Amino acid sequence: MFSQQMYTLGSRRSVIREIFEYGKIRSQQIGAENVFDFSIGNPNVPAPACVNETLVKLIQTMDSTALHGYTSAQGDQGVRAAIAGNLNARFGTRFTANHLYMTVGAAASVSICCKAVAQPEDEFITFAPYFTEYRVFVEATGAKLVVVPPDLDSFQMDFDAFQGLINPHTKAVIINSPNNPSGVVYSKETIQQLCGILEQKQKEYGHPIYLITDEPYREIVYGDIEVPFLTNYYKNTFVCYSFSKSLSLPGERIGYVAVGYEMEEGDKIYAAVCGAGRALGYVCAPSLFQYLVKECVGQTSDLSVYKQNRDLLYNALTGYGYTCVHPDGAFYLFVKALEKDAYAFCERAKKYELLLVPGDDFGCPGYVRVSYCVKTSTIQKALPAFQKLAEEYK
Amino acid sequence: MFSQQMYTLGSRRSVIREIFEYGKIRSQQIGAENVFDFSIGNPNVPAPACVNETLVKLIQTMDSTALHGYTSAQGDQGVRAAIAGNLNARFGTRFTANHLYMTVGAAASVSICCKAVAQPEDEFITFAPYFTEYRVFVEATGAKLVVVPPDLDSFQMDFDAFQGLINPHTKAVIINSPNNPSGVVYSKETIQQLCGILEQKQKEYGHPIYLITDEPYREIVYGDIEVPFLTNYYKNTFVCYSFSKSLSLPGERIGYVAVGYEMEEGDKIYAAVCGAGRALGYVCAPSLFQYLVKECVGQTSDLSVYKQNRDLLYNALTGYGYTCVHPDGAFYLFVKALEKDAYAFCERAKKYELLLVPGDDFGCPGYVRVSYCVKTSTIQKALPAFQKLAEEYK
Repeated sequence: MFSQQMYTLGSRRSVIREIFEYGKIRSQQIGAENVFDFSIGNPNVPAPACVNETLVKLIQTMDSTALHGYTSAQGDQGVRAAIAGNLNARFGTRFTANHLYMTVGAAASVSICCKAVAQPEDEFITFAPYFTEYRVFVEATGAKLVVVPPDLDSFQMDFDAFQGLINPHTKAVIINSPNNPSGVVYSKETIQQLCGILEQKQKEYGHPIYLITDEPYREIVYGDIEVPFLTNYYKNTFVCYSFSKSLSLPGERIGYVAVGYEMEEGDKIYAAVCGAGRALGYVCAPSLFQYLVKECVGQTSDLSVYKQNRDLLYNALTGYGYTCVHPDGAFYLFVKALEKDAYAFCERAKKYELLLVPGDDFGCPGYVRVSYCVKTSTIQKALPAFQKLAEEYK
Repeated sequence: MFSQQMYTLGSRRSVIREIFEYGKIRSQQIGAENVFDFSIGNPNVPAPACVNETLVKLIQTMDSTALHGYTSAQGDQGVRAAIAGNLNARFGTRFTANHLYMTVGAAASVSICCKAVAQPEDEFITFAPYFTEYRVFVEATGAKLVVVPPDLDSFQMDFDAFQGLINPHTKAVIINSPNNPSGVVYSKETIQQLCGILEQKQKEYGHPIYLITDEPYREIVYGDIEVPFLTNYYKNTFVCYSFSKSLSLPGERIGYVAVGYEMEEGDKIYAAVCGAGRALGYVCAPSLFQYLVKECVGQTSDLSVYKQNRDLLYNALTGYGYTCVHPDGAFYLFVKALEKDAYAFCERAKKYELLLVPGDDFGCPGYVRVSYCVKTSTIQKALPAFQKLAEEYK
């Protein structure tokens, strides 16, 4: 007599959260220093100094009722203008405050965009490996998630498979680059090819196909890698962003939707975004963190430790005989499991106190995700465990 | 090709928000001190000292990644235990941390509870006048909102009408006391009568009927008024709470769902609440404000100004010839409009820079809501405007 769908979602939980909770319990049993928890994308780098300094300044100087009061549902005008200005300066875009809608993080952003555009019979396409919650958000609207199988060589997009799946029911395509879980950044060529197909299909079907790009890892890239900014390539784009990773604030829930500045019927779509936020029970994004973002937009935590971790872990694991694509961004290694069943492999890894996430829920069975947003010393301590695990399979 | 339902929700917005935005613009035009904005329930009393003191302490002493990192999806265990303890001490309840689910405020709480229990063909009943967003949250699940007409004498519940509307499709009843917009507190007798009918109907229909009680105004009551705590009266109760009003933090979005400690299949329902939160795109409630609540639970802002405002406004308005029920709680006066069409009345009020909210969207045409969570001096300055407005109708 309650919703079985919600019960299933809540009792199974996300596999990631499940392992995260196991890690907490295991830490209590044997000490946190003995658990090698590579399960969750919780940044281990502290927020930059500007964050806590600005928080304290706001608290000590702003009027309490202004600081802690409601903002407009779409977010404070000045905050949105500051973000628009920052995007325009960095990416040559033409956003104004009126294209931006503040949210409680990227999960909310994606969920809101899906709700804003979904109609009955709609299909949303995503590319495996994909962030597990896309299925949840799409299905919550009543629409269907269609998954393009992974290209296991490059973890870029398999366009032949995509062309076979896109159809007149396709309402939107959800992408995520730098990618969780593969760490791959979609190249400019990949993006151009994707957008070319979408343009052609929009014409052919006579209706828009939206591109929802989920970009919490935008700033976490290594070397000279460029992450194409999608509204510059495709008009009907929603950019979903979170400050969780760039400012190390995942628990605070602050992010936004940027509605493409050249989107067809953009004003109406923006209104639908506001309506979707309202329908899902959002009132406004947390006000203190909105004002914080206004001051700290453009800054990041010290992200260099992630590169150090990537190099250490990638070199060691490939040395032990593991195979995985070389990640250019985010803080994940997506490693081929050493047996067919990634769940069984992750269970075996637990014997060595290694907490890994099976790739099945990311649409990529046979692989595991290793989150390296942990202390470098944790990786160093964990390497012998990875080595022993590999030896079991020799 | 996008969701017309979401577009309508977003473009019409809530009437309250619409007037709130008008007030902001009008303030820029003629100065905030000349606009008598009685439209929104934004507390004007500062947060108590413990709030900003605790925020600064947490920021300056807690490890950044712990403070700003993800909590469990249902909220930090210690935070939930602290809230459970506080409720048990005050109301003789038997909550544990495992009955509590932290949310981004009461709107999210109600939205999540609706999503957790709704199935196709379901009906949710509420009593007019009711908070406008209940319709939005219920309809977003695909279920139907059924409204019991107001009892215009007492603004308690019209049980004859209720008995005529409850039926085997009734999944839940949503109530709100102290009530927004009437300010009325449902008496113990009203609650007992309601719960008696629900018990009887549960038996008759052979399935649970949930009671969703939306209680952001619980602490804002005047004199010796008691607000019955619903889980003590009815097992299948969800308590939806927000710290927005009691701690003057409406912009920060922090609240909870408390699942009745004797609810039938309570563990499963709690899982469905977790699943609904996940489906709607919530990840966790803002971590800094979770930890804040742990320290400040049981404290409130100085609420005495609301009583002072109520007395001032109620006495003056009834003196000018307005009629309205005497409110025992919240910070709203629900006044009979001086013409049949409350929209027309509110438009006329704007001539005097009085911003009032028509009662139509609360299910009570012909009435207007006056939010008196404003400075007492604003009320004093506004009284001549109310008087002139009344004189127009004489």
